[in-house]
Amino acid sequence: MERLTSYEITVMFLALGILLATARILAELVQRWHQPAVLGEILAGMLLGPTVLGALAPEWSAWLFPMQGNSALVLEGLTTLAIALFLLVAGMEVDLSTMWRQGKTAAAVGGAGLVVPFAVGLIAAWTMPWSLGWEGKLHPLLFALFFATALSISALPVIARTLMDLNLYRSDLGMIIIAAAIFNDLAGWIIFAMILGMMEEESGHGMGIGQTIGLTLAFAAGMLTIGRWLIHRILPWVKAYTSWPGGVLGFALALALLAAALTEYIGVHAIFGSFLVGVAIGDSSHLREQTRMVIHQFVSFIFAPLFFASIGLTVDFVRHFDVGLVLAVLAIACVGKVVGCGLGARWSGLSSREAWAVGFGMNARGAMEIILGLLALQFGVIHERLFVALVIMALVTSMLSGPMMQWCLGKKKGRALSSYLGARAFLNPLHAHHRDEAIATLVQAASASANLDPEAIVAAVQYREQLMPTGVGRGVAIPHARVEGITTPVMAVGLSRAGIDFDAADGLPAHLIFLLLTPPSDEGVQLDMIAEITHLFENDHMREQALEVNSYTEFLALIKSAGAG
Amino acid sequence: MERLTSYEITVMFLALGILLATARILAELVQRWHQPAVLGEILAGMLLGPTVLGALAPEWSAWLFPMQGNSALVLEGLTTLAIALFLLVAGMEVDLSTMWRQGKTAAAVGGAGLVVPFAVGLIAAWTMPWSLGWEGKLHPLLFALFFATALSISALPVIARTLMDLNLYRSDLGMIIIAAAIFNDLAGWIIFAMILGMMEEESGHGMGIGQTIGLTLAFAAGMLTIGRWLIHRILPWVKAYTSWPGGVLGFALALALLAAALTEYIGVHAIFGSFLVGVAIGDSSHLREQTRMVIHQFVSFIFAPLFFASIGLTVDFVRHFDVGLVLAVLAIACVGKVVGCGLGARWSGLSSREAWAVGFGMNARGAMEIILGLLALQFGVIHERLFVALVIMALVTSMLSGPMMQWCLGKKKGRALSSYLGARAFLNPLHAHHRDEAIATLVQAASASANLDPEAIVAAVQYREQLMPTGVGRGVAIPHARVEGITTPVMAVGLSRAGIDFDAADGLPAHLIFLLLTPPSDEGVQLDMIAEITHLFENDHMREQALEVNSYTEFLALIKSAGAG
Repeated sequence: MERLTSYEITVMFLALGILLATARILAELVQRWHQPAVLGEILAGMLLGPTVLGALAPEWSAWLFPMQGNSALVLEGLTTLAIALFLLVAGMEVDLSTMWRQGKTAAAVGGAGLVVPFAVGLIAAWTMPWSLGWEGKLHPLLFALFFATALSISALPVIARTLMDLNLYRSDLGMIIIAAAIFNDLAGWIIFAMILGMMEEESGHGMGIGQTIGLTLAFAAGMLTIGRWLIHRILPWVKAYTSWPGGVLGFALALALLAAALTEYIGVHAIFGSFLVGVAIGDSSHLREQTRMVIHQFVSFIFAPLFFASIGLTVDFVRHFDVGLVLAVLAIACVGKVVGCGLGARWSGLSSREAWAVGFGMNARGAMEIILGLLALQFGVIHERLFVALVIMALVTSMLSGPMMQWCLGKKKGRALSSYLGARAFLNPLHAHHRDEAIATLVQAASASANLDPEAIVAAVQYREQLMPTGVGRGVAIPHARVEGITTPVMAVGLSRAGIDFDAADGLPAHLIFLLLTPPSDEGVQLDMIAEITHLFENDHMREQALEVNSYTEFLALIKSAGAG
Repeated sequence: MERLTSYEITVMFLALGILLATARILAELVQRWHQPAVLGEILAGMLLGPTVLGALAPEWSAWLFPMQGNSALVLEGLTTLAIALFLLVAGMEVDLSTMWRQGKTAAAVGGAGLVVPFAVGLIAAWTMPWSLGWEGKLHPLLFALFFATALSISALPVIARTLMDLNLYRSDLGMIIIAAAIFNDLAGWIIFAMILGMMEEESGHGMGIGQTIGLTLAFAAGMLTIGRWLIHRILPWVKAYTSWPGGVLGFALALALLAAALTEYIGVHAIFGSFLVGVAIGDSSHLREQTRMVIHQFVSFIFAPLFFASIGLTVDFVRHFDVGLVLAVLAIACVGKVVGCGLGARWSGLSSREAWAVGFGMNARGAMEIILGLLALQFGVIHERLFVALVIMALVTSMLSGPMMQWCLGKKKGRALSSYLGARAFLNPLHAHHRDEAIATLVQAASASANLDPEAIVAAVQYREQLMPTGVGRGVAIPHARVEGITTPVMAVGLSRAGIDFDAADGLPAHLIFLLLTPPSDEGVQLDMIAEITHLFENDHMREQALEVNSYTEFLALIKSAGAG
C-alpha cells in the first residue's frame, strides 16, 4: 500500500500552515483598506508561489509547494474539496425569495447584465481571438463562448460584502442588486456548465454534449424545485431525531459532496453540484442561524483562504503578465457589464445615478470569475496569459465596485464604531469625580488626537448636556456635540468604577462614558453612533466585561467581537 | 504536472460523501442507545471497507476506497489532516486549571491510573509477547513499552461525554475524574511520543532517540508555559485587529498546522503538536465560546467522523479477529486501569463505591487508544490482529464506562425532556375550553401510550391542581401528579391558541400545557422536569415558535435545538 511518508506529512502540514497564515494575514491587511479578502488571499499565493518566492528562491518554493508528486496531489485534492465547500456557502447566501420579490427589476438588470456582456465578449472574442489570448488549439467558437461567459458572471459574495460596507445591503437599491446578482449567478453557472460539457465532448472524453446539457438542466431544475422542497421537509426531521447541530451539519455536507460527485460525473464540475445544494439548503427556514454560521465561518476563514491562495500558486503572475491583454480584458469586461446592468436598471425606472451605481455594483467579479478561469486553465481552454488577465480583471473590478458606487451615489462608507477610537482617547480609569470634570478630561483626550481647541468643545458639550442629560441609563452616558473643523467623528471613552452622575432616568451613575464629537455636515452619523453604543451596552454581561478590561486592546477586542465590528 | 483526473475527483467526492453520511447516521443510531459516537463511526468504516462490503462485493469496495493510487493518497492526506484537527479540539477540552484545582486527588488517581496499567501491560507483554500479538519483528522491549502505553491512556472526550450523560460533569466526583484524565492524557501522550521516537530510531530513519525525546519534552514544556502565556497575550491582539472570528480561527488552525509539522519533523507524529496547541489555546480565557464552538462542531461532526470511519476501512475486522487475543487485551486493560485508578481514589479518601466509579470512569479508552493503535500499525509495531483487538478493547471499555459507573453509584441516567414525549401524546390543537377538560384530554392521551387508568390519574392531577394552581405564568401551565404503576415519567403536551385559564399569577391564560406523570419512587425527576420546562419557555421567542409548529416533529425539533436535547 502506497502511503505518505513522514517527510511528506511534515511538508504537507508546513505548507498548509504557512499558506493559511499568510493568506489570513494578507486578507486582514487588504480589508483594512476596504478591499475584498480574496485579493489578499491570492496575493499570499503569489508571494509563496512562482511569482515571488519562486523567483527569489526557487528551490524553497518548489520544496514547500511541489508541482508534482504525492504532496501536490494531496494539496490538489484538498483545494478541490475546499472550492466545493466554498461554493456550498456561496449557494447558501443565495436567497431565492429576495429574487422573486424584486421580480421584474431583478430580471431586467440581471438579464441585461448577462446578455450585454455576453454579447460584447462573444463578438470581441470571435472577431479578435488572437489578441484575447486564444492560442489556436481550441475551437474558436468554444473559446468565444467561454470568454463571453467569463465576462458575464458576477460575484455574489463580493457584491454582498460591498453593499454591507456601504450600509446599502437592506436598502431597495441593495436588494435589486443582490436579486439581479442571484439571477445572474444562477443563469451564468448553468451556461458555464453547458460550455464545460461541450469542452468535454471536444476533448473526446465524457458523455455526449446533448446528454450533459440535458442532465445539467434536469439536475438544476430538480434541485431548485423538488430538491428544495424535499430538503425543507427533511431538515426538521433531521433536527428532531439527531444530535444538534451535528445532524444538520453532516446532512448538508454529505449532500453537497454527493451532489458534487454527481455533477462531476455528468461533466460539469463538482462545484456546480455543491452550489445548487447550497441554494436549496440555504433557502430553507429550518436551517438555523447557528448551523449556517458554523459552516460559513469555517469554510470562509479556513477553506476559502487555502483555495484562493492556491490560485496564486498555480502560475507566475509576472512572467505571464501581458499588459495589452489585461487592459483589453478589463475594458471589454467593464463596458459590457456596467452598460448592460445600467441599461437594465434605467429601463426598470431607476434614476441615472442609481442605474450607474447598479452597474458598478454588478461589475464586481471576484471569486467566481477566478474559479471559472482556473477551470478553463485546467481544461486547457485558456493559457496562463489569459488566466492572469482574468484574475487581475476579477480583482480590479471587485476593488473598483465599492468606490465607484459611493461616487455615483455620493454616499459615505459606513464605518465601525471601533475605528473612531484611538489608544490615547481611551481613559481607564477615568480620573474624575463629577460630570464637568469627566467631560473636560475626555475632551482633552479627544482633542489631543484630533488637534482641536479643547475649550470651545467643552463649552459645546456642556451646552448640549444642559439641554438634556446624556446619561442613557444602565451606567452608560454619551455626552456629545457637533464640532466645526473635523471631517470624521472623534470618540473618547472613559471607564469609571466609582461612577459619575449623568442624570440618567434610572438614577444610576455612569461607569462607561463615551464622548462623541461629530462633524456638523454629517447629520446621520451622530445618531447612528449613539444608537450603536446604546444597543451594544444594553446587555448586562457586556457592561460587566467592559469594566473588567485591562487595556485599550482588550476594550477594542470586546466591542469588535460583540458585533460592533 | 500530475493532476487528479475528473474520474478521480468524482470518486473522491462520492467516497467522502458516502463515508460522511454513513458515519453520521450510524453515530446517531448508537447514540440513541447511549453509546459513544466513535463506535458508530468505526462501524461505518467496517461496513464500507474490507470487513463487510469488501467481503460481499470486493470490486465495489475497492473502487470506492482503493488501497493505492491517487485517490488513496488524497484520502490519506485528508484523514491525516482530520486527525490533527481532532486532536486540536481534544486539546482544547483540556482545562489545566481544573487539573490544578483538584491537585492531589487528581495526581493520585491519574498517576496510579497511569503507573498501574503501564506496569501490568509491561509485565504481560514482556512475559508473554507471543500471545499478545507480538510477531517477532520489533525489539520485544519496544513492543512491551508500546503495549503498556496503549493500555494507560484514557480518552478524555469519551469520559467527558459519559459524565455529562450521567449529570456528573459538574460534581466533585466528575471533576476528579476529568482532572485525573487530563493528567493521564498529558503524561501518556508524552510517553507515547518518546516511544515513537525510539521506534523511529529502531527503524533507522529520523533523528537520534536522545534528540527526539529532548526536543519532545522541550516542546511540551515550552508550549504549556511560554507558549500558553504568549497565546494568552496574542489572542486579544488578534481579536482587536482582525475580522472576527476569522482572525482567531485562522490563528488557531495555522498554529496547530505548524506545530503539527514541527512535531512530525521531530519524529513524534503531527497529532502531538496540534494537541498541545489545543491545550494552550483552549486554556486562554480570551478564546470566546463562539469561536471554540465553530472549531469544535465542524471538526467533531465533519472531520472526526471521516477519520474514524477511515479506521474501519483500514483492516478486515472479521479476518483479523482473534477471540483469545481480544479477551486477553480486554482483561489486562480493564484490570490495570480499574484497579489502578480505584486504588488511587481510595488513597485520596474516596468511599469504595466512589473509588470503583472513578476506576470505571477512567477505564474508557475510546478515540485516543484507536489513534495510538493506528499509528503503531502504520509504523509496523503491531499487526492487524492486535490492532483489531485494541480497537475492540477501546470500544468495549468506552461502552462499559457509563453503565458501570451508574451501577457503582446507583444513579439513574439524566434523560432529555424530549425523550418523554411520544407522537400520540402531542395534541395540536388541544380541543378543550376549560381546565378540567384540558386535563382530562391530556390524561387520556398520556395514559393511552402508557396503559394506565385515566380516571384515577385525572383525579390525582385535579387534586394536585386544587392544592395550588399549576399555571406558571407567561402562557405556560404544567399540571402534574405522581402515579403508581409507571417506572419512567410520561408527558403529554397540548397547544391551545385560544388559551385556557390555569390560575396563573400573571392572570394570563395558558397556551402551552404540559401534563407530567412521574413514578412515586423518583423524587427528583418531577422537579427537574418542571424546572426544565419553565426555563425553556421563559423566552418569548421560544413560546411564539412553539405555537407556530405544524407537527410533532417540528415541536420536537424546537425543544431539542433549544438545548433541551
